[in-house]
Amino acid sequence: MPFITNTRTTRIEWAHCDPAGIVFYPRYFEMFDISTTLLFEKALGMRKREFLAAYKCDGYPMLDTRARFYKPTTYGDTVEIATSISFGTTSFDVEHRLTKDGVLCVEGFEKRVWVVRDSGDATQIRSHPIPRELIAKFEA
Amino acid sequence: MPFITNTRTTRIEWAHCDPAGIVFYPRYFEMFDISTTLLFEKALGMRKREFLAAYKCDGYPMLDTRARFYKPTTYGDTVEIATSISFGTTSFDVEHRLTKDGVLCVEGFEKRVWVVRDSGDATQIRSHPIPRELIAKFEA
Amino acid sequence: MPFITNTRTTRIEWAHCDPAGIVFYPRYFEMFDISTTLLFEKALGMRKREFLAAYKCDGYPMLDTRARFYKPTTYGDTVEIATSISFGTTSFDVEHRLTKDGVLCVEGFEKRVWVVRDSGDATQIRSHPIPRELIAKFEA
Amino acid sequence: MPFITNTRTTRIEWAHCDPAGIVFYPRYFEMFDISTTLLFEKALGMRKREFLAAYKCDGYPMLDTRARFYKPTTYGDTVEIATSISFGTTSFDVEHRLTKDGVLCVEGFEKRVWVVRDSGDATQIRSHPIPRELIAKFEA
Repeated sequence: MPFITNTRTTRIEWAHCDPAGIVFYPRYFEMFDISTTLLFEKALGMRKREFLAAYKCDGYPMLDTRARFYKPTTYGDTVEIATSISFGTTSFDVEHRLTKDGVLCVEGFEKRVWVVRDSGDATQIRSHPIPRELIAKFEA
Repeated sequence: MPFITNTRTTRIEWAHCDPAGIVFYPRYFEMFDISTTLLFEKALGMRKREFLAAYKCDGYPMLDTRARFYKPTTYGDTVEIATSISFGTTSFDVEHRLTKDGVLCVEGFEKRVWVVRDSGDATQIRSHPIPRELIAKFEA
Repeated sequence: MPFITNTRTTRIEWAHCDPAGIVFYPRYFEMFDISTTLLFEKALGMRKREFLAAYKCDGYPMLDTRARFYKPTTYGDTVEIATSISFGTTSFDVEHRLTKDGVLCVEGFEKRVWVVRDSGDATQIRSHPIPRELIAKFEA
Repeated sequence: MPFITNTRTTRIEWAHCDPAGIVFYPRYFEMFDISTTLLFEKALGMRKREFLAAYKCDGYPMLDTRARFYKPTTYGDTVEIATSISFGTTSFDVEHRLTKDGVLCVEGFEKRVWVVRDSGDATQIRSHPIPRELIAKFEA
């Protein structure tokens, strides 16, 4: 079943780069996190803090993430990040492809879990089935 | 062949945490990057900018990294990060185990490549064999 | 003498926010640094790495910066940052006004110095007169 | 009235540095934020999330902060940060002096406000008198 995808254009900044002059790789994970948010916002028609409230969700923390690096990018580069998603019962997988001038530079993979919180303790969270009606909104 | 390992103690800070009150996962990659540096510094007896100069190396950018998240941590937590390494010809693999009170919270995996730079262009880098005498210094 | 100003629209993201649910204030300095870069790029018609090379400049590190915080912002907020500049001989001053829906949230002030580097040692830098022809390009 | 001060030793890491090879200045504000937390923890004998709960405080966001930069630092540098505080009625001022080998590199100044939150809306906060018994614990 195909789901909505999202592609956004962003720019590599001085703040993202390290003494080697290229992006410090943890910054790509920050970019990918924004892309995942934007995909949800596009599908649900609400901003993150609104859809978390609407679905009584306490977030979708990461279970497992990976990135493969093919070509460095540097400050001033304009890049595109194409993001796609697939859903399980309580978790979902996201893939990101970051390209520059059409050339793949970084791929990102995420497995996240839909959670509700048991109590005020931020570290006490448990997985919860992703609402069917939420998934339906991602269907292209 | 067993290599030197390193374990360090660090603390989770407010600056690492997100609105869910737990570590924003890209921050773990920053912590792991520091741990990799410290392992090299321990084995080589020099700080990073010194050993990069000594071995005429332009860095060891990431080829592939992954992290698996088992248990959230939050600000004020004291954690330990145990780091181990294994060497290939031009690349090396690093594993990190972040624990709190002996309980595994996050595992990190890295494959990095030893590079020299062809020119002043920071994005033009190529792999280079890791010096044998450098690897020898990691042998426990 | 009035100089070119620049206003850009950006968005507050989850990655910028802390456990209180609002922007962690060092992130505003990152946003302001991007705004300063964009102002230079607009005036000079080149990206940062190009104009640093064109003017043989080794950067414009911060001498003094300040920010005043009037109203918090949170993830999902769209904000505008208006940036203006004034030039001295070897230094320049930048002001940023970050607004949400027209309401001032944060003001930023910077004094930076134009530098060239004496040697390969990144910490050995000295101020240098800002080229007159560069300043002329900022004149509105 | 003299208050408790705190001095800590920390290290500049690759993750803090920019393409010029020196600390990207927003990272100093992150370091100073940690130093402020540690000063409170030293005086109160509790970690931040514990003293926020104990004093029913929703945090101490920044009203005004400034930093002056005298000398760059780079990865591998060991630095000391000395932190002192003075209290007003609802706000307090913090000063940080970051030195390397006894030489002042960066000074930081903060004015923060003690807040409680009116509601679940993270951006709706108001100042509140700092508890007298909390201030008493800072008296040297």
